[in-house]
Amino acid sequence: MEIRRASEADFEAMWSIFQAVVATGDTYVFSPTTSRQDCHAYWFGPETTSFVAVEGLTILGMYKFRANQRDLGSHVANASFMVSPAAHGIGVGKAMGQHCLMEARTAGYVAMQFNFVVSTNTGAIALWKKLGFSIVGTLPKAFKHQRLGYVDAYVMHRFLNDG
Amino acid sequence: MEIRRASEADFEAMWSIFQAVVATGDTYVFSPTTSRQDCHAYWFGPETTSFVAVEGLTILGMYKFRANQRDLGSHVANASFMVSPAAHGIGVGKAMGQHCLMEARTAGYVAMQFNFVVSTNTGAIALWKKLGFSIVGTLPKAFKHQRLGYVDAYVMHRFLNDG
Repeated sequence: MEIRRASEADFEAMWSIFQAVVATGDTYVFSPTTSRQDCHAYWFGPETTSFVAVEGLTILGMYKFRANQRDLGSHVANASFMVSPAAHGIGVGKAMGQHCLMEARTAGYVAMQFNFVVSTNTGAIALWKKLGFSIVGTLPKAFKHQRLGYVDAYVMHRFLNDG
Repeated sequence: MEIRRASEADFEAMWSIFQAVVATGDTYVFSPTTSRQDCHAYWFGPETTSFVAVEGLTILGMYKFRANQRDLGSHVANASFMVSPAAHGIGVGKAMGQHCLMEARTAGYVAMQFNFVVSTNTGAIALWKKLGFSIVGTLPKAFKHQRLGYVDAYVMHRFLNDG
C-alpha cells in the first residue's frame, strides 16, 4: 500500500468510495444524496490537502487535512478519512491515520482535532484512541443516524509534538 | 433596543464593529487584519441568517446563526455574536442571545452549539451559562490569545426544546 497526494485523476475513484461510505448514513454527516460537486469541493477545496491510499491501480481510501480554524486557531489541524468498504480490515485507516499525523506535523500543526466522530462508530473511535487521540467533547444527539436516530458525536484531539 | 434582520445597508456599521472586536485578538479566531471581504462573507454567507441590535440609527451588535453541520447534523444550529465595544454592559449580548435562541427554535433547530468559546472570555461564558448553555467540550490550547498565548477553547451547547 502506498499513500500519495490525491490528484484530479483520482477523483472518479474517490467519488465511488465517497458514495459507498455515505450510503449507510451511520458515520458521516453527508446525506446519501450528496452531489458529486459537493464531494469534489470537500476533497479538493481551498487550503485542503488530500491523499489517497493505493494498492497498484486501486484506490483503497483517502484522507484530507486542513486548519480547523482560521488565523488564531490555525495551529490545530482537522482531518477526515474514508476507506473503501471493499478494503475494510486490512489496516488502511490506521496507515492513513499515521501518515496524516506525520504530514500534519511536517506542515507545522501542533495538534489535530476531529470535530464530529459519531459515537456509535466504535471501530473508528478505537483506532483514533490507539493513535493517541482522546475524547475532549461530547455533542449530545448531534448526529441523525440512519438506523439509530439521534446519537452523540465526539470531538477527539491529540497534540502532535510528542512523537 | 430593537433586534431585526441585517441587510446590506447595515454592513458598513457591522464592519466597524467587527474590526473593533477582532482588534484585541482575545475572543475570536479572526486576525486583526481580516479583510472586509472575509467579514462580509462571514455575516452574509450562504445559508446564514444575520441580525442586528439597533438603538435608533446606531447598530450596537450583531449575531448570526446557521446549521452547524450539513445533512445528518443539520438539526443543530451554530451561532456567533459581536457587540460593539461602545455598547458593552447594557445587555446587548443577552438580548441578542435570547433573540437568537427564539429564532433558531422557530427555524426548527433542536439544539444550539458554539464551537469555539475562548476559555478566558469569562463574560461570554457566564452569559451563555445564564442562558442555559453548558460546556460539553474543552479544546486544549486551541486559541492563540494575543496577550496570553495558547489558551483553551470551549464547546458550549444547549437543547432548544425546553422553553
